Amino acid sequence: MKENSKELIKVNKISTGIWKLTFGSPEKITPVGLRNSQYLIANIEKLICEDIIPIDKEDIKFKITNRGSIVELPLRDNEKIYGFGLQLKSFIQNGKKKNLRMNSDPVADTGDSHAPVPFYVTNSGYGILVDTSRYLTYYCGTHSKVSEFNEDVEKRSDTIAGNTTDLYAIKETNKQMNMVIEIPSVQGVDIYIFEGPSMKNAVQRYNLFSGGGCVPPLWGLGIWYRIFGNSNSEDAIKLTDLMRETKIPCDVFGFEPGWHSHSYSCSYKWDKTRFKNSQVMLDELNRMEYKVNLWEHVFVHPTSDIYEKMKKYSGDYEVWDGLVPDFSIAEARNIFSEYHKKEFVEKGVLGFKLDECDSSDYCPVPWSFPDYSSFPSGIDGEQMHSLLGVLYQQTILKAFEDKNIRTYSQVRSSHALAAPMPFVLYSDLYDHKDFIKGVVNMGFTGLLWSPEVRQCESTEDLIRRIQTVVFSPQALINCWMIKNPPWFQVDCDKNNRDEYMEGYEKVEEIIRKYFRIRMSLIPYLYSGFVKYHEEGIPPFRALVMDYPEDKNTFAIDDEYLMGDSILVAPLVAGENSRKVYLPEGNWYDFWTNAKIKGEAFYEIKAELDIIPLFIKEGTILPLAEPVDYITKDTVFKLNINCYGDKCEDFVLFEDDGYTYNFNEGDFNKIELSYNKDCGKSIKKVGEYSGTKYEIIDWIYIK
Amino acid sequence: MKENSKELIKVNKISTGIWKLTFGSPEKITPVGLRNSQYLIANIEKLICEDIIPIDKEDIKFKITNRGSIVELPLRDNEKIYGFGLQLKSFIQNGKKKNLRMNSDPVADTGDSHAPVPFYVTNSGYGILVDTSRYLTYYCGTHSKVSEFNEDVEKRSDTIAGNTTDLYAIKETNKQMNMVIEIPSVQGVDIYIFEGPSMKNAVQRYNLFSGGGCVPPLWGLGIWYRIFGNSNSEDAIKLTDLMRETKIPCDVFGFEPGWHSHSYSCSYKWDKTRFKNSQVMLDELNRMEYKVNLWEHVFVHPTSDIYEKMKKYSGDYEVWDGLVPDFSIAEARNIFSEYHKKEFVEKGVLGFKLDECDSSDYCPVPWSFPDYSSFPSGIDGEQMHSLLGVLYQQTILKAFEDKNIRTYSQVRSSHALAAPMPFVLYSDLYDHKDFIKGVVNMGFTGLLWSPEVRQCESTEDLIRRIQTVVFSPQALINCWMIKNPPWFQVDCDKNNRDEYMEGYEKVEEIIRKYFRIRMSLIPYLYSGFVKYHEEGIPPFRALVMDYPEDKNTFAIDDEYLMGDSILVAPLVAGENSRKVYLPEGNWYDFWTNAKIKGEAFYEIKAELDIIPLFIKEGTILPLAEPVDYITKDTVFKLNINCYGDKCEDFVLFEDDGYTYNFNEGDFNKIELSYNKDCGKSIKKVGEYSGTKYEIIDWIYIK
Repeated sequence: MKENSKELIKVNKISTGIWKLTFGSPEKITPVGLRNSQYLIANIEKLICEDIIPIDKEDIKFKITNRGSIVELPLRDNEKIYGFGLQLKSFIQNGKKKNLRMNSDPVADTGDSHAPVPFYVTNSGYGILVDTSRYLTYYCGTHSKVSEFNEDVEKRSDTIAGNTTDLYAIKETNKQMNMVIEIPSVQGVDIYIFEGPSMKNAVQRYNLFSGGGCVPPLWGLGIWYRIFGNSNSEDAIKLTDLMRETKIPCDVFGFEPGWHSHSYSCSYKWDKTRFKNSQVMLDELNRMEYKVNLWEHVFVHPTSDIYEKMKKYSGDYEVWDGLVPDFSIAEARNIFSEYHKKEFVEKGVLGFKLDECDSSDYCPVPWSFPDYSSFPSGIDGEQMHSLLGVLYQQTILKAFEDKNIRTYSQVRSSHALAAPMPFVLYSDLYDHKDFIKGVVNMGFTGLLWSPEVRQCESTEDLIRRIQTVVFSPQALINCWMIKNPPWFQVDCDKNNRDEYMEGYEKVEEIIRKYFRIRMSLIPYLYSGFVKYHEEGIPPFRALVMDYPEDKNTFAIDDEYLMGDSILVAPLVAGENSRKVYLPEGNWYDFWTNAKIKGEAFYEIKAELDIIPLFIKEGTILPLAEPVDYITKDTVFKLNINCYGDKCEDFVLFEDDGYTYNFNEGDFNKIELSYNKDCGKSIKKVGEYSGTKYEIIDWIYIK
Repeated sequence: MKENSKELIKVNKISTGIWKLTFGSPEKITPVGLRNSQYLIANIEKLICEDIIPIDKEDIKFKITNRGSIVELPLRDNEKIYGFGLQLKSFIQNGKKKNLRMNSDPVADTGDSHAPVPFYVTNSGYGILVDTSRYLTYYCGTHSKVSEFNEDVEKRSDTIAGNTTDLYAIKETNKQMNMVIEIPSVQGVDIYIFEGPSMKNAVQRYNLFSGGGCVPPLWGLGIWYRIFGNSNSEDAIKLTDLMRETKIPCDVFGFEPGWHSHSYSCSYKWDKTRFKNSQVMLDELNRMEYKVNLWEHVFVHPTSDIYEKMKKYSGDYEVWDGLVPDFSIAEARNIFSEYHKKEFVEKGVLGFKLDECDSSDYCPVPWSFPDYSSFPSGIDGEQMHSLLGVLYQQTILKAFEDKNIRTYSQVRSSHALAAPMPFVLYSDLYDHKDFIKGVVNMGFTGLLWSPEVRQCESTEDLIRRIQTVVFSPQALINCWMIKNPPWFQVDCDKNNRDEYMEGYEKVEEIIRKYFRIRMSLIPYLYSGFVKYHEEGIPPFRALVMDYPEDKNTFAIDDEYLMGDSILVAPLVAGENSRKVYLPEGNWYDFWTNAKIKGEAFYEIKAELDIIPLFIKEGTILPLAEPVDYITKDTVFKLNINCYGDKCEDFVLFEDDGYTYNFNEGDFNKIELSYNKDCGKSIKKVGEYSGTKYEIIDWIYIK
C-alpha cells in the first residue's frame, strides 16, 4: 500500500478558481478527456473569486490499496454537502455513503442513479469533481477513526431504541470526520477543485468548465406529449388533431418503441404496418407545428442498416441481441450520427428519447451489458455504463449541430460535465415527492430532470403532478401506457377502453390552465437558460444555492427556485396545505399578489387547482399571452409584471429560438428596468433582425 | 490483461468428488483458510460418486482485468442454478446478476444479503464454491456475446410491451450463455468443485467439507421468546412466570440491548439500574429451566473491560464509538471468548444473539465500518464484512466448547462454510413470503434461518407467521418492541399500554397448540440435525433437492421439506387456500390422515388454525407428548406414527442433548422399523447410558 508520499499528488491550475490535483497515475479515459465541449474560459474569468485553492494541500491524503485508490479531504465544522447528480432519496449528503453506480430503478438511497455525477459542492463554497467513470464511493463524513476515550461519547448511552428507525438514525457527534472517496480498480485519479466564494459560484464554475449550460430551442419549453406505445399513424394524427381542437397547448409529440420495425433492440426504421407512409405523417405533424420526438435506445439490432458497419466499433456483449456501440470512438459516433441526420433530422424529426443507456442492477433480470464487457477503445463495461449516456447525447447532438438545428431531447442517463447537453432526464421510478426532490437536487451538478406525468392514481394525483411538471425543465406528459390523455380518464384500463371519467371537463380545464401558464412563462424560462449557458447558473435550483447564509434553507428539499425569481412549492396528492419557507426579503403570492414577509415558515393552504408560487420582491417577470404552440414566427405578447418599487433588471433573450446562430452573435438582449422613481425602461442591444417579443403592458404590483 | 494461459489454472484433488482449481495468484486470507472446523473426510468418502470432475477443464476460462479476476464456466441446456446463501427475493438464479455484498436490509434482488454465500449448486449435480471474501458478482447465464445474425432472434420482435414488467421480463433465448464470476481486486482465486451425482449430494459434500452441520442442544429446538428492550429483571421474572402459568411452552428467554450498561456499542456488562442483581435473576431463570440468551454486537465500547486489550487487535475505524475486533487473529478471539466464558457461560448463560455483524449500505446512515478499513491481520473492510459473521460465531462458540456445553444461538450474518455453526440467521426485513423463501433457500448453502415473529398487522398475520416459524430451525418470537406477548395484543401501542385485545384467549389457544406441536416434533427434528452433522443433509430444504428429476419442483419456492418426511406449505395473511405441489409417491394430510396421490398440484384450503402439512408415505414419524420445556432429565414419551404399509427406518438419536460427549461416541442410535408383513421393531445401538425416549404407542396410518 502506497500512502501519501508527496510525489503522488501534483497540483495544476486550470483557470481562475479551478485546479486539477493529480494523485498517482490516473486512468486514460475519463469524463474530462471525453468532453466534447470547450470550457468557457472567458466566462469563468468573469466570475470573481480569491483564486486561492480552498483546501489546504497538507490536509489531503491519498492512498493506493488492493481495492483501488482513496482520497481523503477535510470537512469543516457544520459543512453541508450537496450533489452527486440525480439523487431522488436525499438532499444533504452528510453522514451518507454514496456508491455512484449507474443504474435504473434505484430503490434505496445508496447512490445508484440514472445520473450519478462524481461532483459535489458544499456550503463552504467549493466544489469537487472526481474525474472518473469508475463506480466510486463517497463516505460523506460517515466514520471516525479509533481514538482516545472521550467523556462526550459516554453520554450518549441512555435511551433504549424502541424501533429500527431510532436505532439506526444519525447521531450527532463531535468527532472529526472527513470526506473519504474510494475509487475502485485505479492506481490514481485527477480531482478538480472549483472555488466559490459561494456554493452557487462553485457550481457556475463547474458548469462553465463543462462548456456552459444548454439553450433549448423555444419550442422545447412548451408542452410535451408522448403517445400510446401501440399507436399507428392514424392514431397520431387523431390525437394531435384533438389537442389542437380542444385548445390544449402542445409543442412536442413523441413516439414510443412501436415506431421501430424492430425493438428491443432497435432497427431505427419505421414499422411499415403501423406507419405505412411515415413521411406523409411527419409532414402533416410538422405542418400542424408539432415537433416530432422519436424513442430509441442505443442497442443496434441486426436488421438495422448500421449493424454491419457498427460491429467492429462495439462491445463484446449484446443487449437484447443488439450491439453496444463504443461512442468513445469517433467512427462509431459518426456512423450513428450520420444515419440519424440523414434518416431523421433531414426528414423533419427534432428530437429523440434516448432510453436505457443506464444499467440494470435493480431489475429482476440484468438486461444491460455486463460490467466486465470489453469495448474496442479499451474501456470496460463499468466505465461504459458511466460514460454511455453523455457519449450518446453527444452523438445525437452532432446530427442536429451539423444541420444548425437545436434539439431539446430526453435521455435516461447522464454523468459528469453534462450541462451543455440539451437533454432532460426521466425515470421509471414514480414517487411524486422523490420526483420533486429530483428538481431540487439537479441544479447542483449540471443536470436537467423532468418529473414526468404518466399513470395517475386519481385526478388529484394527476393535477398535483401536472402542477409540478409544468414548473420543471420539461413539461412532459408520457402516455405510453394509455390511449387517451389522462385528463379524460386516469384509470389506465378504462382509458384504454375509451371510457371517459365523469366530470372530466373540469379536470381538463385545470390542466389547460396550467399548460397555458407554462406557455406564458417561456420567455422568462428562456432567459434563465441563457444564464445557464453564459454564467453557468442552473435554471432550476435549491433555495440553499441562492441563500447559503440562511440556515433555514439548508435542508429544504421540497421547494425550489425556477430562474432567479419564482419560488415553487409543489403539493402531492393527499395534501391540501404544506409548510413553505420564504427566505429573506418580501415575496408575492403569484395568485393573489399578496405581499408576504420572508425569513419565515408558513403553512400554506392550496386548493387542488393551486400550486403555491411566490415571486421575489424586486422581480420583473415577463408573462406572455399563452399560445397553443410555438412556430418560427411566434411573437410573444408580453405583460411585464413589476413586483415592488425597485426592481432588478430583467434581460430578455431574443434570437431565432431555433438555430445555433446565437453562437455567432445573432441575438438581442432586451433589458427591462423599473423603479418607482425613475419609471420603466427598455434597452435593446444586439444584431438579431427578427422580433420575438412585443410588450403589451406593464403591471405594477405593490 | 492476462487471459487463460494454461499455467494460470491448476487442479488439485481434495477428497472424493472434491477438487480445488487455482486460478492465477489467489489472496492469502480466505474463507477456507479461516475455517476452524476440520472437514469430515471419512463421511465425505462414504458418499458414492463417479469421482470425475464434472466440468471439462477446457471449457473453463480465466482472465485478469483492471477490475479483478473473471472465471467463466459453461452452463448446460436447461441447467438450473440455486444457492448464494440467504436469498429472500429469488429462488432459481438463472438469468440473474448477483453481487454478493454483505448487507442488512437488502431491498431488491441484487445479491446483497445478511449471508451471501459464494456457493451455488445446479440440478446438473455439482456445486461451486469461490473461496473469496470479496464482493464477487455472479452473472448466471445473463449475457451473450455478439454473434452472427440468427433467424430465431429476429422472431421475437412482434409484441409492444404495455408496462415495465413485460418490458424487462426474462426472454427465452437459444443462445449459449455461461456462468461468469467476477471477483474484484484480485489477481486470482481458488474455486472448489463438489461433485454430485445429485444436487443434494453436492450440497452434502459441501457441508461435510465445511465440517458437517451443527447439532443443537435439545432445548434449542424448543420455543424462543425475546423480551421487550426496556425490561428490567422484575419484568423478566414476571413474564417467564406468566409463560409457565399459562402453559405456553418456552425454553429460551432472550434479553435485548438494554441489559448492557452501555449499548450501542457494547460494554458486555449488566446494567445496574435495570438489573440490580443479575446473578440472582439468572439463577432464578435457570431454576425455572429457562435457557438465557443475551443480545450483543461485536463493537466494543470504551467502558468494556476488554476495550484496552482489544485495541491493538482492532480495525482502524470505530462503529458507534466501539472497536471492531479482528477475529482473524487468535489473540483477539481469545480475549473475547475468554471474557464471555468467564462472565456469561460460567454464570449460566447458554447463548447469544450476535447482532449487526453484517453491513449497512441500505441504511440511510452507514453505521458499519467502511469497506476501506484496515485490520491488523492485513485484511480490509470489504473482506472483514464478509468474514466477520463466521469469525464472530467461531469466537463465541469457543467459549461454550471450552466448557463442553453446546449452544444454539442467533447471528445476523454468515458466509461460506457455516454449516458447523449452531447459529441461526434473522433479519430486520419482514415480508412473510420472503421469510418463507428464506427457509426454502437456506438448505442449498449450509445456513439456518429463522422467519422470526415480531410485530403483526393482525391476529391472522400473527397466527400465519407463528405457523411458519414453528416449522423452521428456530421457533423464535421476538418481542423487543412489545411489553406483552403478541397473542394478548397484536397492536404494538395498545400492547405497550397493557390493553389486551378482545377474544385473545382464542388466539392464545391456537398459538399454544402450535408451540405444542413444535415440542412434539423435537425428537424428529433432532434426528434431522444429526443427519446434517453426519451426512451433510440440510434439515430444511427445497423440494428440488429431494426430487431433482421432477420438473414441477424446479421453481417451487414456497414449500419445503422439514427433515426427510414432512412437507410444509405455509400460508400468509390474506390467504385461505393455496396451491401445493406434492411430488411422486403418496402423501398423508397431517391433520386428517387423508391419503393423497403425489406428482400433482392441489388447491389446498386451510382455515386460520391450519398450516398445510403432508407426510410422505413410508415415513415413521415419532411424535412426543409435548412438554413445556426441556430439562436435562426430560424423557420424551413417543407415539410412533407409521404412514403406509412399508416404512423407511427412522433413527432416533439419543445422547445427553447438552454436551459434546456425543463426539466421543457417547450416544445411542435407536432404529425404528415397520412394515406390514414383518411388523415393527426397535434396535438400539450405542454407549450412552441415559434414556431420552420412551415409546408409548405405535400408530398405523393407512
